[in-house]
Amino acid sequence: MGEWPHPATGGGRAVVVLDVNETLSDMAPLGRRFADLGLDPALARAWFAGVLRDGFALTAAGGDARFAAIAEAELRRLLDAAAPGHDAGAAVAHVLGGFATLGVHPDVPGGIAALADAGHRVVTLSNGAAAVAERLLAEAGVRDRVEACLSVEAAGAWKPARAAYLHAARACGVAPGDMTMVAVHPWDIDGAVRAGLRTVWISRDGAAYPPHFRPPGRTARGLDALAPLES
Amino acid sequence: MGEWPHPATGGGRAVVVLDVNETLSDMAPLGRRFADLGLDPALARAWFAGVLRDGFALTAAGGDARFAAIAEAELRRLLDAAAPGHDAGAAVAHVLGGFATLGVHPDVPGGIAALADAGHRVVTLSNGAAAVAERLLAEAGVRDRVEACLSVEAAGAWKPARAAYLHAARACGVAPGDMTMVAVHPWDIDGAVRAGLRTVWISRDGAAYPPHFRPPGRTARGLDALAPLES
Repeated sequence: MGEWPHPATGGGRAVVVLDVNETLSDMAPLGRRFADLGLDPALARAWFAGVLRDGFALTAAGGDARFAAIAEAELRRLLDAAAPGHDAGAAVAHVLGGFATLGVHPDVPGGIAALADAGHRVVTLSNGAAAVAERLLAEAGVRDRVEACLSVEAAGAWKPARAAYLHAARACGVAPGDMTMVAVHPWDIDGAVRAGLRTVWISRDGAAYPPHFRPPGRTARGLDALAPLES
Repeated sequence: MGEWPHPATGGGRAVVVLDVNETLSDMAPLGRRFADLGLDPALARAWFAGVLRDGFALTAAGGDARFAAIAEAELRRLLDAAAPGHDAGAAVAHVLGGFATLGVHPDVPGGIAALADAGHRVVTLSNGAAAVAERLLAEAGVRDRVEACLSVEAAGAWKPARAAYLHAARACGVAPGDMTMVAVHPWDIDGAVRAGLRTVWISRDGAAYPPHFRPPGRTARGLDALAPLES
């Protein structure tokens, strides 16, 4: 990764680390892809929970796998169970095609621009491939406001393992305490807290934070309510 | 834990380690509890996937929490999202009440009896409380065929972390390689393989094994198709 072109702009402001899936992307259209197949739209949430369950299981057991590989296998399993005898290949392609065309939440473009305008370095850190974040940001018109799209693929462990956050800190050349993790998933906040990062939990629907996870430093309703973060 | 009363019976046969939730218990009635509330029965599967996702996340991040605590918090979150404004306390109690009254799959009582008759020491190892397994086995009439009901609560890490399986090996006084993990969940098989145990994957519906997990030593359609396991 090259040097950030405006290293002096931030005046010591935290590096903002944005999660990608659901934090940036709006997954609601995925439910419609299941409905297109005559299936329960709620399967979309069960699918994503199952992908994380399997990825976290591998991380806990000391293994590793690509997000896309687990996503496809878990989708195939779920479709086989929900609609035995269907054309599995076409159904899998239809849902994965939906995943590849998701857009960002309305608060994302302005929120990222405001963070960059306030002098923050902004990066993404995903359990998925960096290419997903690259596409999302480019289509939202804010790719040039984001320094780097990072993936845990280079860390050998998924978030919320400590190694994933330390990989991002190394890639940015800062200490974990100089980073602020911004995410919708409580498990991501918990892992970031344990790894020494500051945290902002994005709760667009105002849901309660689960008590079994370490709490966020701050809660906000959207990315556009963040800037500037205190140093 | 006391000594197994018949240490010589087995003649060196593997200690059989049974997973509990879904491997022993039939979770299908949980869907009806959601339907009773006017909700999608598919939420039952999403709930269980979410509980495992959060528990594994904590394990991967170096934290720990009780299964029952996560189960209740995740259920509350899910019900709040699915039916805003409902009587959350009563709904949570109705579903958790269903969890507390689940029975075992039809192949379980005969399967456990056959394993014990073949000279295997049989234990359970759950991410949940040992009391859940105690009740399931007692009501199925096979509690006296099982040496001990173990929980990861004493290990400080959930399966599929290595520490959970090594806890069971220590509790049984055998090497990991002298144990055979029997489970319906591929993530449990994967973790047991990595920890050095032998494995049997129970696939009651004949589903395919996910390629991102290490494969089982053997696959069976039910617990009644196991005994005797080779030494």
